[in-house]
Amino acid sequence: MNTLYSDMDKETLVKEKNALERQYIEFKKKNLSLDMSRGKPSVKQLDISLPMMDVLNSASDYKSSVDVRNYGLPSGIPEAKKLMADMLDVSEDNVIVCGNASLNIMYDIVSTAMIKGIMGHTPWHKLDKVKFLCPVPGYDRHFSITEYFGIDMINIPMTPEGPDMDLVEEYVNNDESVKGIWCVPKYSNPQGLTYSDEVVKRFAALKPKAPDFRIYWDNAYCIHDIYDDRSDKLYPIFDECRKNSNEDMVYIFGSTSKVTFSGGGISAVACSGANIEDIMKRITIQTIGHDKINQLRHVRFFGDLDGMKNHMRKHAEIIRPKFGLVLDMFEKELSGLGICEWIRPNGGYFISFEAMEGCASKIIDKAKQAGVVLTGAGATFPYKKDPYDKNIRIAPTFPEEDELKLATELFILCVKLVSIEKLIGE
Amino acid sequence: MNTLYSDMDKETLVKEKNALERQYIEFKKKNLSLDMSRGKPSVKQLDISLPMMDVLNSASDYKSSVDVRNYGLPSGIPEAKKLMADMLDVSEDNVIVCGNASLNIMYDIVSTAMIKGIMGHTPWHKLDKVKFLCPVPGYDRHFSITEYFGIDMINIPMTPEGPDMDLVEEYVNNDESVKGIWCVPKYSNPQGLTYSDEVVKRFAALKPKAPDFRIYWDNAYCIHDIYDDRSDKLYPIFDECRKNSNEDMVYIFGSTSKVTFSGGGISAVACSGANIEDIMKRITIQTIGHDKINQLRHVRFFGDLDGMKNHMRKHAEIIRPKFGLVLDMFEKELSGLGICEWIRPNGGYFISFEAMEGCASKIIDKAKQAGVVLTGAGATFPYKKDPYDKNIRIAPTFPEEDELKLATELFILCVKLVSIEKLIGE
Repeated sequence: MNTLYSDMDKETLVKEKNALERQYIEFKKKNLSLDMSRGKPSVKQLDISLPMMDVLNSASDYKSSVDVRNYGLPSGIPEAKKLMADMLDVSEDNVIVCGNASLNIMYDIVSTAMIKGIMGHTPWHKLDKVKFLCPVPGYDRHFSITEYFGIDMINIPMTPEGPDMDLVEEYVNNDESVKGIWCVPKYSNPQGLTYSDEVVKRFAALKPKAPDFRIYWDNAYCIHDIYDDRSDKLYPIFDECRKNSNEDMVYIFGSTSKVTFSGGGISAVACSGANIEDIMKRITIQTIGHDKINQLRHVRFFGDLDGMKNHMRKHAEIIRPKFGLVLDMFEKELSGLGICEWIRPNGGYFISFEAMEGCASKIIDKAKQAGVVLTGAGATFPYKKDPYDKNIRIAPTFPEEDELKLATELFILCVKLVSIEKLIGE
Repeated sequence: MNTLYSDMDKETLVKEKNALERQYIEFKKKNLSLDMSRGKPSVKQLDISLPMMDVLNSASDYKSSVDVRNYGLPSGIPEAKKLMADMLDVSEDNVIVCGNASLNIMYDIVSTAMIKGIMGHTPWHKLDKVKFLCPVPGYDRHFSITEYFGIDMINIPMTPEGPDMDLVEEYVNNDESVKGIWCVPKYSNPQGLTYSDEVVKRFAALKPKAPDFRIYWDNAYCIHDIYDDRSDKLYPIFDECRKNSNEDMVYIFGSTSKVTFSGGGISAVACSGANIEDIMKRITIQTIGHDKINQLRHVRFFGDLDGMKNHMRKHAEIIRPKFGLVLDMFEKELSGLGICEWIRPNGGYFISFEAMEGCASKIIDKAKQAGVVLTGAGATFPYKKDPYDKNIRIAPTFPEEDELKLATELFILCVKLVSIEKLIGE
């Protein structure tokens, strides 16, 4: 059982600090070069998708409703629509299958909204102000898109149930310049939290002041459970929106980037028929169509959603021990010190860590100086500004376990050191 | 030897017309359903790239400078840069390799210019007028992009040497609202003409009034020769621009859409370092990177540019007889009638046909009524408006030869019929 740092007198803390500093110097001597900064799958995870590379070869037929090797079907092949629709919990008529990155779909939708407008509404570049709500901490690449286009971002605190819905309703239902909200509703990046049924229902019941307000529902981790005995369930927003005659209000995104290959997967957007039509007006100008061969490859490999889920169990087997390792070390070394908090997620790719106020950037710097790269301080907030300098996103999937252990040891050391420095007023 | 229609008296023409109409009725009875509308490769052409589907399998290594199965290298893998640079006749430092469609690269550049501006210049949406020069006839999908963004398009007549450069210089060097020109410089779509060295040199020596004027040099058919004994050579514009300290003035585009698989290939843009940097600022926001597995697949399949050129000879073997069939039938049936002209190209995907003024749309309609779909009238002009209603784009690659023969017979019949109707004043 660890003792609260705040219960220690200054002398004890200084002693502890000196001991930690000696350990830190030893760490530096190891010349580590480890990266826990991005949510990247490990080599072992990538290897489990290698059999997909055998399903299409020179002897295969390439027939869908068309020859997938030729032009056509800019909204995707029917079989891939079915697969991605099942993954995203919508009907296949409500899906467009695109290229390798769902981020690109989001970017294109925001970019098109800027210059052409959504479903005939005023292009955003003609408006004085356009605002997006950003549940924080959140996904840095979402925030980069809205920052790139000069869209004002408003922090919305996350609760254990999801974004603070009182605040969301207040903004969305009253402010016409609020045009969107970025959401990672299941195993959120970085907290690994899943929005409660109540939160999803309140989302679907929003009465936006802006007719072109949309929920950007990035269901990136929809099938990314880590444990066999417990997993989060996400209430299906699209059906609920429909019930509320709100079906145009949501875009749902997903991809197989962390199912098969990162950058070699397929992606999709799910939305109402009117939104599909609006998006297809652009896609038919923008491209001759997406890579249908890779769509067919995925379909033949998985068969159906059950095939995907079976595949995800193999990922879980590989990453479960890594999450366990980090979380157990945190538990053993950091619990009860009163200097930090973290969340034990049931899925996703991250562990979200909350240091003492003002300490996150110092911890990250200190770890970097000893050779361990963590996600940059503030990265999980719009404009890279964490107002309390507390949040650190930990990505445990990529390093092998021995490296992960070392990196976590160093991280814990840095957390303790920086916290003591704060407590003794250095 | 055919007789000039204009030398025939009205009675002879009416007789001829009646005979043609009987043939046309016979054709209609065949219930044809043939498509010569798009430049699509045939199944046989697609089949020659099937061995590419064997070069990567579950036993392959996926190593470039990174593991291509994971995130990273948003500008493409080095080997693919080298291959596409060689294809586009530039250095590999001047290339970004992207996804499956070069059209998408063009769209993204124009879209970004609209909303963010090129290299720090004023975003086009803030300008009263933005104009693009459009050599005509040209590629419909280029014109669709500029039309989509509300950019004014100005027709520039094509000469046998390329666009009318007096006119191009007049516009580009004096009008600041002229921001671009769409070019297919080799085996142009639809004429199959290659710009002369002199024309390329005049392009590279332009002194644009607008600092963000760019030449959109779509080198789609750079290695698409049809004959062994004759091929066009395109003077390298990028080096020439550099000589003139004009290296920022051109974007060069290319893809393997008509080399390997249409929609399953890889694409690239080549340009100056400053332009590359400008484009990468957007790409790093827009996507987590393009499909590097498909890039590696192409590299391993071709090895190098010679490998690509060998591969293109197989395409040429398949499409050469098709071009020959159409051109020989035109020669036999239509030459000397004084009612049309066409060009015999050395490469590319099209035959450009010029009917009598006001006849193109009628010919296309008549063919359609008998079951042969040609590219829509006016499609090769901005706003789909062919000012003289003369140009018809013929795409002979997709149909099998027996179908192509039937379709060409019908086409010739329709040309004659519509021309006689015009001549006798019906």
